[in-house]
Amino acid sequence: MPVYTAPTKDTQFVLHDVLNIKDSGIPGYDELDSEFTGAVLEEAGKIARDVLHPLNVVGDTEGCRLENGVVYTPTGFKAAFDQVKEGGWTGLDMPEQYGGQGMPYVMGTAVGEFFSAANQAFTMYQGLTHGAASAILVHGTDAQKDTYLPKMVSCEWTGTMNLTEPHCGTDLGLMRTKADPQDDGSYKISGQKIFISAGDHDMADNVIHLVLAKIPGGPDGIKGVSLFIVPKFLVNEDGTPGARNGVSVGNIEEKMGIHGNSTCVMNYDGATGWLLGEMHKGMRAMFTMMNEARVGVGMQGLAQAEAAYQNAVEYAKDRLQGRDVTGAKNPDGPADPLIVHPDIRRNLMDQKSFAEGARAFLLWGATLIDQAHRGADKDADGLVSLMTPVIKGFLTDKGYDMTVQAQQVYGGHGYIEEWGMSQYTRDARIAMIYEGANGVQALDLVGRKLAQDGGKHVMAFFDLVKGFCKENADVSEAYTKDFIEPLKAASKDLQAAGMYFMQNGMKNPNHALAGSYDFMHMFGHVCLGLMWARMGLAAQKALDAGASDAAFYETKRATGRYYMARQLPATKLHLARIETGADTVMALDAAQF
Amino acid sequence: MPVYTAPTKDTQFVLHDVLNIKDSGIPGYDELDSEFTGAVLEEAGKIARDVLHPLNVVGDTEGCRLENGVVYTPTGFKAAFDQVKEGGWTGLDMPEQYGGQGMPYVMGTAVGEFFSAANQAFTMYQGLTHGAASAILVHGTDAQKDTYLPKMVSCEWTGTMNLTEPHCGTDLGLMRTKADPQDDGSYKISGQKIFISAGDHDMADNVIHLVLAKIPGGPDGIKGVSLFIVPKFLVNEDGTPGARNGVSVGNIEEKMGIHGNSTCVMNYDGATGWLLGEMHKGMRAMFTMMNEARVGVGMQGLAQAEAAYQNAVEYAKDRLQGRDVTGAKNPDGPADPLIVHPDIRRNLMDQKSFAEGARAFLLWGATLIDQAHRGADKDADGLVSLMTPVIKGFLTDKGYDMTVQAQQVYGGHGYIEEWGMSQYTRDARIAMIYEGANGVQALDLVGRKLAQDGGKHVMAFFDLVKGFCKENADVSEAYTKDFIEPLKAASKDLQAAGMYFMQNGMKNPNHALAGSYDFMHMFGHVCLGLMWARMGLAAQKALDAGASDAAFYETKRATGRYYMARQLPATKLHLARIETGADTVMALDAAQF
Repeated sequence: MPVYTAPTKDTQFVLHDVLNIKDSGIPGYDELDSEFTGAVLEEAGKIARDVLHPLNVVGDTEGCRLENGVVYTPTGFKAAFDQVKEGGWTGLDMPEQYGGQGMPYVMGTAVGEFFSAANQAFTMYQGLTHGAASAILVHGTDAQKDTYLPKMVSCEWTGTMNLTEPHCGTDLGLMRTKADPQDDGSYKISGQKIFISAGDHDMADNVIHLVLAKIPGGPDGIKGVSLFIVPKFLVNEDGTPGARNGVSVGNIEEKMGIHGNSTCVMNYDGATGWLLGEMHKGMRAMFTMMNEARVGVGMQGLAQAEAAYQNAVEYAKDRLQGRDVTGAKNPDGPADPLIVHPDIRRNLMDQKSFAEGARAFLLWGATLIDQAHRGADKDADGLVSLMTPVIKGFLTDKGYDMTVQAQQVYGGHGYIEEWGMSQYTRDARIAMIYEGANGVQALDLVGRKLAQDGGKHVMAFFDLVKGFCKENADVSEAYTKDFIEPLKAASKDLQAAGMYFMQNGMKNPNHALAGSYDFMHMFGHVCLGLMWARMGLAAQKALDAGASDAAFYETKRATGRYYMARQLPATKLHLARIETGADTVMALDAAQF
Repeated sequence: MPVYTAPTKDTQFVLHDVLNIKDSGIPGYDELDSEFTGAVLEEAGKIARDVLHPLNVVGDTEGCRLENGVVYTPTGFKAAFDQVKEGGWTGLDMPEQYGGQGMPYVMGTAVGEFFSAANQAFTMYQGLTHGAASAILVHGTDAQKDTYLPKMVSCEWTGTMNLTEPHCGTDLGLMRTKADPQDDGSYKISGQKIFISAGDHDMADNVIHLVLAKIPGGPDGIKGVSLFIVPKFLVNEDGTPGARNGVSVGNIEEKMGIHGNSTCVMNYDGATGWLLGEMHKGMRAMFTMMNEARVGVGMQGLAQAEAAYQNAVEYAKDRLQGRDVTGAKNPDGPADPLIVHPDIRRNLMDQKSFAEGARAFLLWGATLIDQAHRGADKDADGLVSLMTPVIKGFLTDKGYDMTVQAQQVYGGHGYIEEWGMSQYTRDARIAMIYEGANGVQALDLVGRKLAQDGGKHVMAFFDLVKGFCKENADVSEAYTKDFIEPLKAASKDLQAAGMYFMQNGMKNPNHALAGSYDFMHMFGHVCLGLMWARMGLAAQKALDAGASDAAFYETKRATGRYYMARQLPATKLHLARIETGADTVMALDAAQF
């Protein structure tokens, strides 16, 4: 059976030693002292380890089933969900007004990583509800908020997001679901939506669907799309669930992974719905919460990588196979543990340096979201908007790769389901796809975000890196060599790529778009490089201050050095590819494939 | 439902335009004219498309089941296996003396790709038999050959390879299975073997297990391992299957993929076996066929990538989503097909340039095996020994990555099982693990093969590349720029890495081993670069000669240019990593992970 322990100590290090959140000046952060966040994280870690993780394999093995129109979740899910609700975990970062705990988003993200790592399929029920509730919070009328939010914050009722239809995913302008206005101000929603995560289940009294649909007579394409609230059970005057609405589950999809989550085909047959936000502005309403949703998916990439890594380490320490070529490390045993072998080390160091770097990047991104929302800071909003496709695309691509590497440590045992390593890769695979496939993230980054507000935010990012390097030029010779110089070089590569796009994308946008995927990865590496430089510095400072746990900080530095030396140089390859432009990419006619 | 069409035209191009097999002087190749190979490939393609491929999803969905000690294969497998046997496909490259067709190994490989692409799990029953029969062919007594080979060549009886035990995979010296000598010259085999592909099933009258075991009193570790023939049914005097032997299936493993193949736990309880080859030389006997077996697994990496690619192309041409930023390509439709988008092109070009390059590399390797065996050419043997871990490791790693990319083209539809793209990744995953996990391939390459025969073979490889570049320096300015220069640069990187190993590996072998995985990939890129340079040249020559199918050759050149420009520069990143040595890789103590 796989193991999982929440990396609370590492999260604390990032929050306090690196991001120094308490003194960041972000509204609400003054309460986030080390003791408080530590207590929250420890408690969350226990739930993750003791309640959610034991159900991870169960969920994968049993999956969900649809019987006579009712969706049943795997054994134990309902009881665990009740525990999560009772602990108040579902409303951690939701407003107190609606029964939440009012903590900042960064805390929701930190805890979310643990829950997702322990059981991604399970945690999605809560995650989707969070997303839907956020949309109602921002765009709902007071009456809508009062009706839905208290129940959704507590997850008495869960939520869903209905975008995709069989013939359209990314290109939602092709949407066919209709919303016919009724005399009472409601709408009749008709159409089919697919890939609806947590679409229905037996763990809540009601399911609140947010559905994109077109009101007849509206503008063509994406500009004619509106967002609707469509509850599974219509809500009575007294706020209790009443009559069943005209929405039903057509099917549960058979998927590669996340079997514990019910991915439904939803059929709307004249279901009653209410407009959420403005008519024909449904996409805008969806986009306001896109940053959070995408950061949340990036978090899943990290979470699966961390969980898989922990198991790979256990196995590498435990499994005896072969001998250390430099001399036996377990001379009395029949063989040495796998972890003595340099290629196993390479594999594990890739995973470790990714997971820790990704955690810092993710939490930094979450603080920017708080700064943007709680502090109404437009620059922070611009910066995190720029980095959101990077967080989503890079962390899920790399997170997946790391689960594959973790699986590889197990040899044949990684391929059979018994050890649980296959599940990590199968579950992690979805994060590269949903909430905008990673190619679409790259397009968003290069086609939209780079030039946003006159390129102001990407310039701010480069200034930030430059400023950091300048400020810390004199820390020590070793720090400069190990951290500052590689970061500078990587950042220079990223700037050169941006320059290439500017100079060539004007002539032909394909010159930029053909390099978009490489640019997204390159940007991700520079962000992780920056985070490792910051972590290396924080570790150095702690050591200089005579920290009691020197081993932790020494490990941190050594892991950072690995990332800078072995991973960060990838920017050169990405740049080389980008600078070949679109010619070889677009050379063939479609018929030549 | 997924589609599959055997790429016969491309295989023909490689065999004749690039490798010029007929005039290569390899014994038996003079019969391989274009018409003959074309007829074989066309026929094989039909079987792959019409018989094997329709059962691919069936095998995945149904899997194998064990009932009362009997293993049942998925619906339709037996009838299909009968068709394959009747067509003589199982003995294509086996000696005529034992009922085979006596064709060279290169033809078996070419056909093997089609069969594996159509249905990997199914084709493994035949593949394992081929491996076991090859071992008996090389190491068996005349009596053993006469008893087993005719039945195994025809696949009336199938074969297995039993190496792994629960506590040992790579490190077979830890083996516990025992072989007790009996008075009649036979042995009683007792122990448990796991991960036995095609371990038992209902498609053959007998299963011939080749089992590694230790004869008590022999040398410790790997030097005390012997190889045994252990039939499921003991063979009667008249050659028919007789009494049941003491071997049984303990379990069928639940795996991530290749569900159609029965991966068995095999229990040997005093089963009767006969020594194959010399006592205590079991590993040597296994190794003689290792090159072929590993090349065969590399072939699976290519095969799954090709199959997945074909479907990704179909979908990208068919699915309408978004508009070409440079102007609508399907103005009368609601949207343009996916294939207009640069990032989709990048993805597809990665796949196409890999699959075609890998095919050439694989078939070149197969000709070297023929040259080594049929021509008793020791240099060819040395060269292909050197490249075998590269063929296995690089083609399966990249092949897997390509199936993941193909899946990505489908967006959400790639994640649900309905479209079949998940199966390609799940099936492809095993090839990175079995027949020596890819980390072990890298170790074999750097720790053993590089220095073999005083480094003679790697020198021969570099000379070959250098010679090719020199010979073709004056083809055309464009050819030099597009193909020769990138190949030279990549080869130079590879040499630099080899030099680094020589200079630093002496001091500390970890400096070499920490870079072994990167070196394997780097070597793979250079090999594919060489193959693309050869293919680019062959295409150029065909065009100059006024070939009727100019579009094919133009496509080939453009695809080659893509590989050289976008993929080959990866050598620089690998070199940069290698040159950081072992310090950052080995910095942590095991306890620090």
